[in-house]
Amino acid sequence: MGKTRVAVILSGCGVYDGTEVHESSAVMVHLSRAGAEVQLYAPNVNQMHVVNHLTSKPTEEVRNVLVESSRIARGNIKELVQLSINDTDALIIPGGFGVAKNLSSWAVKGKDCSVEPSVELTIKKFHATKKPIGLCCIAPVLAAKLIPGCELTVGYDTECEKWPHAKTTQAMKDLGCKHVNKNVNEIHIDKKNKLVTTSAFMCNAPIHEIFDGIGEMVKEVLRLV
Amino acid sequence: MGKTRVAVILSGCGVYDGTEVHESSAVMVHLSRAGAEVQLYAPNVNQMHVVNHLTSKPTEEVRNVLVESSRIARGNIKELVQLSINDTDALIIPGGFGVAKNLSSWAVKGKDCSVEPSVELTIKKFHATKKPIGLCCIAPVLAAKLIPGCELTVGYDTECEKWPHAKTTQAMKDLGCKHVNKNVNEIHIDKKNKLVTTSAFMCNAPIHEIFDGIGEMVKEVLRLV
Repeated sequence: MGKTRVAVILSGCGVYDGTEVHESSAVMVHLSRAGAEVQLYAPNVNQMHVVNHLTSKPTEEVRNVLVESSRIARGNIKELVQLSINDTDALIIPGGFGVAKNLSSWAVKGKDCSVEPSVELTIKKFHATKKPIGLCCIAPVLAAKLIPGCELTVGYDTECEKWPHAKTTQAMKDLGCKHVNKNVNEIHIDKKNKLVTTSAFMCNAPIHEIFDGIGEMVKEVLRLV
Repeated sequence: MGKTRVAVILSGCGVYDGTEVHESSAVMVHLSRAGAEVQLYAPNVNQMHVVNHLTSKPTEEVRNVLVESSRIARGNIKELVQLSINDTDALIIPGGFGVAKNLSSWAVKGKDCSVEPSVELTIKKFHATKKPIGLCCIAPVLAAKLIPGCELTVGYDTECEKWPHAKTTQAMKDLGCKHVNKNVNEIHIDKKNKLVTTSAFMCNAPIHEIFDGIGEMVKEVLRLV
């Protein structure tokens, strides 16, 4: 049997306007350790905007999602439209605001968002062919939007210092999903939809706990292949 | 006894013109797991240039090292001139071409390079006060330039597919350093200079091996405090 082939979709480079770099790095380290064959992808579109991560303010710059994602990929990345479902066993999407700004319009429109066409097509293909999908941090909103009635977690549904983004769970429930409260070191498995989710940086936790939670998610995605 | 306080210097965000994101993430995960108190820093200077990581070609953009480094720091970063040696126990500098392009002019001038003034001052202060310094990937060139006669590793000194950047070792030897061949999972400890080095992405190895090698470096830096 060959290696498990996993596609990872990035959404830029930096938590406030792209992929959360530590989440993507954790996904890659855990997949590498498990011996998976990884191919990174990103849509070839401009970012919704560029955020100066020092001041948290938007700038006037224009940056492309594929080009910025290639910083995390060390140049080894493909345009998402090139992904062949027949050559891929599983899909993982790390978090960061890029998911809600570049892969979808969730940051602006919440549950009424649209999903970038190549991202929507990709997720629907994996779901239709019963191949596992792993999502962390804010990325589960894509499943909430595209997989009706799915079960998922983005952590806890009561806002506090530890869970500053808990309100996301309400929009997911409004879409008809079942949100399951889970700690940062835990995952939720929706067996029917082969969907594995974990909160990652939705939780205000030390970075090694986020690394470990993502490790659990990666392990379960590979187990479901 | 309080937590060990570690300063980490970043040089941008992306292997070809800044900090190698996975190396910096690995440093942060290992320090977090060890319970260290981490403060990220970067010099407030423009990058030497900006490289499109998809095409490997320079662009016309202007980006600032501190601003781009804050993508890795999730906004939690200080200007390097603010570092107080009295409040810090150890220093770590991850690799990426940013070390050779933004923290020094090694990429252009090799052993005749200059080092960015706040970086030079910082390294010299840690060395003078016998506080440990950890460097990985190409970052050991800074020690080669600033700490005469030090011992270090950037991997192996014979160029091959696994060690594509082996020629760096010759310039280090020309500066009077002792280069010690070490595999990606190994570190070299210069006890006299409290200097810990490991090859990281100087080695063409799977990312989890780089993660683990950096873990060894972090562990030894904390042990030397």
